[in-house]
Amino acid sequence: MTTRVPVLLRRAYKLINHGPTTLITSAFEGQRNVMAAAWVMGLDYDPPKVAAVIAAGTFTRPLVEKSGEFVINVPTAAMAAAVYAAGSVSGEDEDKFAAYEFETSPASIVSAPFIEGCAAWLECRLIPEPDIQTKYDLFIADVVAAWADPDSFVDGVWQFPDDDKRTIHHLSGGVFLKSGDRLKPTR
Amino acid sequence: MTTRVPVLLRRAYKLINHGPTTLITSAFEGQRNVMAAAWVMGLDYDPPKVAAVIAAGTFTRPLVEKSGEFVINVPTAAMAAAVYAAGSVSGEDEDKFAAYEFETSPASIVSAPFIEGCAAWLECRLIPEPDIQTKYDLFIADVVAAWADPDSFVDGVWQFPDDDKRTIHHLSGGVFLKSGDRLKPTR
Repeated sequence: MTTRVPVLLRRAYKLINHGPTTLITSAFEGQRNVMAAAWVMGLDYDPPKVAAVIAAGTFTRPLVEKSGEFVINVPTAAMAAAVYAAGSVSGEDEDKFAAYEFETSPASIVSAPFIEGCAAWLECRLIPEPDIQTKYDLFIADVVAAWADPDSFVDGVWQFPDDDKRTIHHLSGGVFLKSGDRLKPTR
Repeated sequence: MTTRVPVLLRRAYKLINHGPTTLITSAFEGQRNVMAAAWVMGLDYDPPKVAAVIAAGTFTRPLVEKSGEFVINVPTAAMAAAVYAAGSVSGEDEDKFAAYEFETSPASIVSAPFIEGCAAWLECRLIPEPDIQTKYDLFIADVVAAWADPDSFVDGVWQFPDDDKRTIHHLSGGVFLKSGDRLKPTR
Protein backbone atom coordinates (compact mmCIF):
# COMPACT_ATOMS: atom_id res chain seq x y z
CA MET A 1 0.00 0.00 0.00
CA THR A 2 1.42 3.34 -1.07
CA THR A 3 1.66 6.05 1.54
CA ARG A 4 -0.04 9.15 0.23
CA VAL A 5 -0.75 12.49 1.87
CA PRO A 6 -2.70 15.47 0.50
CA VAL A 7 -0.79 18.40 -0.96
CA LEU A 8 -2.26 21.90 -0.71
CA LEU A 9 -3.60 22.95 -4.11
CA ARG A 10 -1.43 26.07 -4.14
CA ARG A 11 1.60 23.77 -3.88
CA ALA A 12 0.46 21.28 -6.52
CA TYR A 13 2.55 22.90 -9.29
CA LYS A 14 5.68 21.91 -7.35
CA LEU A 15 4.96 18.25 -8.00
CA ILE A 16 5.70 18.63 -11.72
CA ASN A 17 7.68 21.89 -11.90
CA HIS A 18 10.91 19.93 -12.43
CA GLY A 19 9.56 18.34 -15.60
CA PRO A 20 9.31 14.65 -14.73
CA THR A 21 7.86 12.07 -17.06
CA THR A 22 4.34 11.11 -16.01
CA LEU A 23 1.75 8.40 -16.40
CA ILE A 24 -1.69 9.67 -17.34
CA THR A 25 -4.58 7.46 -16.26
CA SER A 26 -8.13 7.78 -17.50
CA ALA A 27 -11.42 5.89 -17.18
CA PHE A 28 -14.89 6.02 -18.72
CA GLU A 29 -17.79 3.60 -18.49
CA GLY A 30 -15.83 0.51 -17.55
CA GLN A 31 -12.83 1.19 -19.79
CA ARG A 32 -9.60 2.55 -18.44
CA ASN A 33 -6.05 3.17 -19.61
CA VAL A 34 -2.59 4.37 -18.67
CA MET A 35 -0.21 6.19 -21.01
CA ALA A 36 3.29 7.60 -20.58
CA ALA A 37 3.41 11.38 -21.03
CA ALA A 38 6.50 13.56 -20.96
CA TRP A 39 4.75 16.60 -22.40
CA VAL A 40 2.98 17.80 -19.26
CA MET A 41 3.57 21.15 -17.57
CA GLY A 42 2.18 23.61 -15.07
CA LEU A 43 0.01 26.38 -16.48
CA ASP A 44 -1.03 28.31 -13.36
CA TYR A 45 -0.28 28.33 -9.64
CA ASP A 46 -3.41 28.97 -7.59
CA PRO A 47 -5.84 27.62 -8.44
CA PRO A 48 -3.49 25.24 -10.22
CA LYS A 49 -3.87 24.40 -13.88
CA VAL A 50 -1.86 22.06 -16.09
CA ALA A 51 -1.37 21.47 -19.82
CA ALA A 52 -0.77 18.02 -21.32
CA VAL A 53 -0.36 16.58 -24.79
CA ILE A 54 -2.63 13.58 -25.45
CA ALA A 55 -2.23 12.49 -29.06
CA ALA A 56 -5.13 11.82 -31.38
CA GLY A 57 -5.60 8.12 -32.02
CA THR A 58 -4.52 7.02 -28.57
CA PHE A 59 -6.83 4.85 -26.47
CA THR A 60 -6.57 7.48 -23.72
CA ARG A 61 -7.86 10.34 -25.85
CA PRO A 62 -11.59 9.48 -25.96
CA LEU A 63 -11.52 8.36 -22.31
CA VAL A 64 -10.31 11.84 -21.31
CA GLU A 65 -12.66 13.63 -23.71
CA LYS A 66 -15.72 11.67 -22.58
CA SER A 67 -15.02 11.62 -18.84
CA GLY A 68 -13.50 15.11 -18.70
CA GLU A 69 -11.02 13.80 -16.15
CA PHE A 70 -7.57 12.27 -15.77
CA VAL A 71 -4.86 11.68 -13.19
CA ILE A 72 -1.23 12.71 -13.68
CA ASN A 73 0.80 10.08 -11.81
CA VAL A 74 4.50 10.87 -11.24
CA PRO A 75 6.40 7.56 -11.36
CA THR A 76 9.71 6.66 -9.73
CA ALA A 77 13.00 5.26 -11.04
CA ALA A 78 11.95 1.82 -9.80
CA MET A 79 9.06 1.97 -12.30
CA ALA A 80 11.09 3.12 -15.34
CA ALA A 81 10.87 -0.12 -17.32
CA ALA A 82 7.09 -0.24 -16.92
CA VAL A 83 6.78 3.46 -17.79
CA TYR A 84 8.63 2.96 -21.05
CA ALA A 85 6.62 -0.15 -21.86
CA ALA A 86 3.39 1.73 -21.15
CA GLY A 87 4.46 4.35 -23.67
CA SER A 88 5.27 1.80 -26.35
CA VAL A 89 1.97 -0.06 -26.75
CA SER A 90 -1.68 0.92 -27.02
CA GLY A 91 -4.37 0.15 -24.44
CA GLU A 92 -6.47 -0.89 -27.38
CA ASP A 93 -4.26 -3.95 -27.80
CA GLU A 94 -3.89 -5.03 -24.18
CA ASP A 95 -4.75 -4.15 -20.60
CA LYS A 96 -1.59 -2.26 -19.72
CA PHE A 97 -2.38 -2.28 -16.00
CA ALA A 98 -2.21 -6.08 -16.00
CA ALA A 99 0.63 -6.36 -18.52
CA TYR A 100 2.99 -4.07 -16.61
CA GLU A 101 1.76 -4.87 -13.11
CA PHE A 102 0.45 -1.41 -12.31
CA GLU A 103 -1.59 -1.71 -9.15
CA THR A 104 -4.30 0.88 -8.85
CA SER A 105 -6.47 2.45 -6.21
CA PRO A 106 -9.40 4.87 -6.50
CA ALA A 107 -8.68 8.60 -6.70
CA SER A 108 -10.46 10.93 -4.28
CA ILE A 109 -12.51 12.97 -6.76
CA VAL A 110 -12.06 11.84 -10.37
CA SER A 111 -12.93 8.51 -11.98
CA ALA A 112 -9.40 7.81 -13.28
CA PRO A 113 -7.34 5.60 -10.95
CA PHE A 114 -4.15 6.25 -9.01
CA ILE A 115 -1.14 4.07 -9.85
CA GLU A 116 0.38 2.71 -6.67
CA GLY A 117 4.07 3.20 -5.98
CA CYS A 118 4.24 6.63 -7.62
CA ALA A 119 5.77 9.71 -5.98
CA ALA A 120 2.85 12.08 -6.65
CA TRP A 121 -0.65 12.24 -8.08
CA LEU A 122 -2.60 15.16 -9.54
CA GLU A 123 -6.33 14.71 -10.06
CA CYS A 124 -7.35 16.79 -13.05
CA ARG A 125 -10.63 18.03 -14.52
CA LEU A 126 -10.56 19.03 -18.17
CA ILE A 127 -11.25 22.62 -19.20
CA PRO A 128 -12.71 21.91 -22.63
CA GLU A 129 -10.90 23.80 -25.40
CA PRO A 130 -11.97 21.79 -28.45
CA ASP A 131 -10.09 23.99 -30.90
CA ILE A 132 -6.61 23.49 -29.42
CA GLN A 133 -7.39 19.88 -28.54
CA THR A 134 -8.02 19.21 -32.21
CA LYS A 135 -5.27 21.41 -33.65
CA TYR A 136 -2.45 20.60 -31.23
CA ASP A 137 -3.53 17.53 -29.17
CA LEU A 138 -3.22 19.97 -26.24
CA PHE A 139 -5.41 19.56 -23.16
CA ILE A 140 -5.87 22.08 -20.36
CA ALA A 141 -7.15 21.09 -16.94
CA ASP A 142 -7.74 22.28 -13.41
CA VAL A 143 -5.94 20.33 -10.71
CA VAL A 144 -8.72 19.51 -8.26
CA ALA A 145 -6.73 17.43 -5.76
CA ALA A 146 -3.03 16.62 -5.30
CA TRP A 147 -1.17 13.97 -3.34
CA ALA A 148 2.42 12.95 -2.68
CA ASP A 149 4.57 10.31 -1.05
CA PRO A 150 5.53 12.04 2.22
CA ASP A 151 8.94 10.35 2.23
CA SER A 152 9.84 12.11 -1.05
CA PHE A 153 7.92 15.41 -0.96
CA VAL A 154 8.74 16.95 2.40
CA ASP A 155 7.55 20.43 3.44
CA GLY A 156 6.83 21.30 -0.17
CA VAL A 157 10.23 20.23 -1.56
CA TRP A 158 11.30 17.06 -3.34
CA GLN A 159 14.00 15.23 -1.38
CA PHE A 160 14.22 11.63 -2.41
CA PRO A 161 15.06 9.15 0.36
CA ASP A 162 16.79 6.74 -2.03
CA ASP A 163 17.69 6.29 -5.69
CA ASP A 164 14.76 4.04 -6.53
CA LYS A 165 12.32 6.72 -5.34
CA ARG A 166 13.73 9.49 -7.54
CA THR A 167 11.42 10.83 -10.21
CA ILE A 168 12.52 10.33 -13.83
CA HIS A 169 12.82 12.40 -17.00
CA HIS A 170 12.48 10.73 -20.39
CA LEU A 171 15.15 11.57 -22.96
CA SER A 172 13.94 9.31 -25.79
CA GLY A 173 13.81 5.66 -26.75
CA GLY A 174 13.51 4.37 -23.20
CA VAL A 175 16.53 6.24 -21.85
CA PHE A 176 15.73 8.33 -18.78
CA LEU A 177 17.61 10.68 -16.49
CA LYS A 178 16.96 10.36 -12.80
CA SER A 179 16.16 13.58 -10.95
CA GLY A 180 19.57 14.48 -9.54
CA ASP A 181 21.04 16.30 -6.61
CA ARG A 182 19.65 19.50 -5.17
CA LEU A 183 21.35 22.75 -6.05
CA LYS A 184 20.64 25.96 -4.15
CA PRO A 185 22.98 28.53 -5.63
CA THR A 186 23.85 31.74 -3.84
CA ARG A 187 25.21 34.90 -5.36
CA MET B 1 32.93 31.48 -27.01
CA THR B 2 30.35 28.76 -26.66
CA THR B 3 30.68 25.74 -28.90
CA ARG B 4 27.42 25.20 -30.70
CA VAL B 5 26.44 22.72 -33.38
CA PRO B 6 23.17 22.43 -35.28
CA VAL B 7 20.64 19.80 -34.21
CA LEU B 8 18.35 18.21 -36.81
CA LEU B 9 14.86 19.65 -36.43
CA ARG B 10 13.37 16.19 -35.96
CA ARG B 11 15.62 15.77 -32.94
CA ALA B 12 14.93 19.21 -31.44
CA TYR B 13 12.28 17.86 -29.02
CA LYS B 14 15.01 15.86 -27.29
CA LEU B 15 16.65 19.06 -26.10
CA ILE B 16 13.76 19.78 -23.70
CA ASN B 17 12.04 16.40 -23.38
CA HIS B 18 13.51 15.94 -19.89
CA GLY B 19 11.82 19.08 -18.60
CA PRO B 20 14.72 21.43 -17.85
CA THR B 21 14.24 25.00 -16.71
CA THR B 22 14.88 27.42 -19.55
CA LEU B 23 15.72 31.03 -20.27
CA ILE B 24 13.50 32.66 -22.87
CA THR B 25 15.07 35.53 -24.77
CA SER B 26 13.18 38.00 -26.93
CA ALA B 27 13.88 41.20 -28.84
CA PHE B 28 11.91 43.86 -30.70
CA GLU B 29 12.98 47.23 -32.09
CA GLY B 30 16.02 47.77 -29.91
CA GLN B 31 14.54 46.31 -26.73
CA ARG B 32 15.39 42.84 -25.52
CA ASN B 33 14.89 40.67 -22.45
CA VAL B 34 15.60 37.34 -20.79
CA MET B 35 13.17 35.52 -18.45
CA ALA B 36 13.39 32.23 -16.58
CA ALA B 37 10.72 29.75 -17.71
CA ALA B 38 10.09 26.31 -16.25
CA TRP B 39 6.76 25.88 -18.00
CA VAL B 40 7.99 24.94 -21.44
CA MET B 41 7.32 21.63 -23.20
CA GLY B 42 7.37 19.86 -26.52
CA LEU B 43 4.15 19.85 -28.49
CA ASP B 44 5.09 17.97 -31.65
CA TYR B 45 8.02 16.04 -33.08
CA ASP B 46 8.51 16.76 -36.76
CA PRO B 47 8.21 19.52 -37.64
CA PRO B 48 8.83 20.37 -34.00
CA LYS B 49 6.51 22.60 -32.02
CA VAL B 50 6.72 23.80 -28.41
CA ALA B 51 4.37 25.34 -25.86
CA ALA B 52 5.51 27.90 -23.28
CA VAL B 53 3.86 29.97 -20.57
CA ILE B 54 4.75 33.69 -20.79
CA ALA B 55 2.78 35.57 -18.15
CA ALA B 56 0.83 38.73 -18.85
CA GLY B 57 2.53 41.80 -17.44
CA THR B 58 6.05 40.55 -18.03
CA PHE B 59 8.48 42.64 -20.05
CA THR B 60 8.99 39.63 -22.31
CA ARG B 61 5.33 39.30 -23.28
CA PRO B 62 5.01 42.25 -25.70
CA LEU B 63 8.46 41.55 -27.16
CA VAL B 64 7.30 38.04 -28.10
CA GLU B 65 3.88 39.20 -29.29
CA LYS B 66 5.30 41.99 -31.45
CA SER B 67 8.32 40.15 -32.89
CA GLY B 68 6.58 36.78 -33.16
CA GLU B 69 9.85 35.14 -32.13
CA PHE B 70 11.82 33.91 -29.13
CA VAL B 71 14.71 31.63 -28.21
CA ILE B 72 14.47 28.85 -25.61
CA ASN B 73 17.96 28.68 -24.07
CA VAL B 74 18.67 25.64 -21.87
CA PRO B 75 21.04 26.77 -19.08
CA THR B 76 23.53 24.70 -17.10
CA ALA B 77 24.12 24.12 -13.39
CA ALA B 78 26.95 26.64 -13.51
CA MET B 79 24.37 29.29 -14.43
CA ALA B 80 21.78 28.43 -11.74
CA ALA B 81 22.25 31.56 -9.61
CA ALA B 82 21.82 33.82 -12.62
CA VAL B 83 18.81 31.81 -13.82
CA TYR B 84 17.04 32.27 -10.50
CA ALA B 85 17.93 35.97 -10.39
CA ALA B 86 16.62 36.42 -13.93
CA GLY B 87 13.33 34.92 -12.79
CA SER B 88 13.06 37.21 -9.79
CA VAL B 89 13.21 40.67 -11.34
CA SER B 90 11.62 42.38 -14.36
CA GLY B 91 13.47 43.56 -17.44
CA GLU B 92 11.45 46.73 -17.07
CA ASP B 93 13.51 47.60 -14.01
CA GLU B 94 16.98 46.71 -15.20
CA ASP B 95 18.96 45.25 -18.11
CA LYS B 96 19.13 41.66 -16.92
CA PHE B 97 21.78 40.73 -19.47
CA ALA B 98 24.18 43.20 -17.88
CA ALA B 99 23.04 42.61 -14.29
CA TYR B 100 23.55 38.86 -14.41
CA GLU B 101 26.43 38.80 -16.86
CA PHE B 102 24.62 36.95 -19.61
CA GLU B 103 26.76 37.20 -22.71
CA THR B 104 24.80 36.97 -25.92
CA SER B 105 25.35 36.24 -29.57
CA PRO B 106 23.03 36.50 -32.57
CA ALA B 107 20.72 33.60 -33.36
CA SER B 108 20.73 32.16 -36.88
CA ILE B 109 17.15 33.01 -37.88
CA VAL B 110 15.21 34.91 -35.22
CA SER B 111 15.89 38.33 -33.74
CA ALA B 112 16.08 37.13 -30.11
CA PRO B 113 19.65 36.46 -28.94
CA PHE B 114 21.38 33.28 -27.80
CA ILE B 115 22.75 33.25 -24.25
CA GLU B 116 26.31 32.00 -24.25
CA GLY B 117 27.30 29.09 -22.01
CA CYS B 118 23.97 27.29 -22.34
CA ALA B 119 23.62 23.61 -23.24
CA ALA B 120 21.02 24.05 -26.01
CA TRP B 121 19.12 26.67 -27.95
CA LEU B 122 15.79 26.43 -29.81
CA GLU B 123 14.90 29.27 -32.17
CA CYS B 124 11.12 29.63 -32.16
CA ARG B 125 8.55 31.39 -34.34
CA LEU B 126 5.18 32.07 -32.74
CA ILE B 127 2.04 30.44 -34.09
CA PRO B 128 -0.43 33.16 -33.13
CA GLU B 129 -3.28 31.81 -31.01
CA PRO B 130 -4.60 35.03 -29.44
CA ASP B 131 -7.41 33.30 -27.56
CA ILE B 132 -5.24 30.93 -25.52
CA GLN B 133 -2.49 33.53 -25.18
CA THR B 134 -4.98 35.80 -23.46
CA LYS B 135 -6.85 33.16 -21.45
CA TYR B 136 -3.92 31.02 -20.31
CA ASP B 137 -0.70 32.99 -21.03
CA LEU B 138 0.06 30.00 -23.29
CA PHE B 139 2.17 30.45 -26.42
CA ILE B 140 2.63 27.92 -29.21
CA ALA B 141 5.56 28.08 -31.61
CA ASP B 142 7.36 26.26 -34.38
CA VAL B 143 10.99 25.43 -33.70
CA VAL B 144 12.77 26.78 -36.79
CA ALA B 145 16.37 25.99 -35.79
CA ALA B 146 17.99 24.08 -32.93
CA TRP B 147 21.52 23.97 -31.52
CA ALA B 148 23.39 22.19 -28.76
CA ASP B 149 26.75 22.04 -27.00
CA PRO B 150 28.33 18.99 -28.67
CA ASP B 151 30.10 18.04 -25.42
CA SER B 152 26.74 17.54 -23.70
CA PHE B 153 24.35 16.44 -26.47
CA VAL B 154 26.10 13.58 -28.23
CA ASP B 155 24.48 11.53 -31.02
CA GLY B 156 21.05 12.80 -29.98
CA VAL B 157 21.39 11.94 -26.27
CA TRP B 158 22.23 14.13 -23.29
CA GLN B 159 25.43 12.97 -21.60
CA PHE B 160 26.94 15.70 -19.49
CA PRO B 161 30.76 15.78 -19.34
CA ASP B 162 30.81 17.29 -15.84
CA ASP B 163 28.50 18.44 -13.06
CA ASP B 164 28.62 22.12 -13.98
CA LYS B 165 27.36 21.34 -17.48
CA ARG B 166 24.28 19.42 -16.32
CA THR B 167 20.94 20.98 -17.17
CA ILE B 168 18.76 22.03 -14.24
CA HIS B 169 15.15 21.67 -13.13
CA HIS B 170 13.55 24.33 -10.93
CA LEU B 171 11.65 23.10 -7.89
CA SER B 172 10.65 26.47 -6.42
CA GLY B 173 12.16 29.42 -4.60
CA GLY B 174 15.57 29.10 -6.21
CA VAL B 175 16.08 25.45 -5.38
CA PHE B 176 16.91 23.33 -8.41
CA LEU B 177 17.60 19.68 -9.11
CA LYS B 178 20.45 18.88 -11.43
CA SER B 179 19.68 16.45 -14.25
CA GLY B 180 20.91 13.18 -12.76
CA ASP B 181 22.32 9.90 -13.90
CA ARG B 182 21.14 7.99 -16.94
CA LEU B 183 18.81 5.08 -16.48
CA LYS B 184 18.11 2.58 -19.24
CA PRO B 185 15.87 -0.03 -17.70
CA THR B 186 15.43 -3.44 -19.25
CA ARG B 187 12.59 -5.87 -18.72
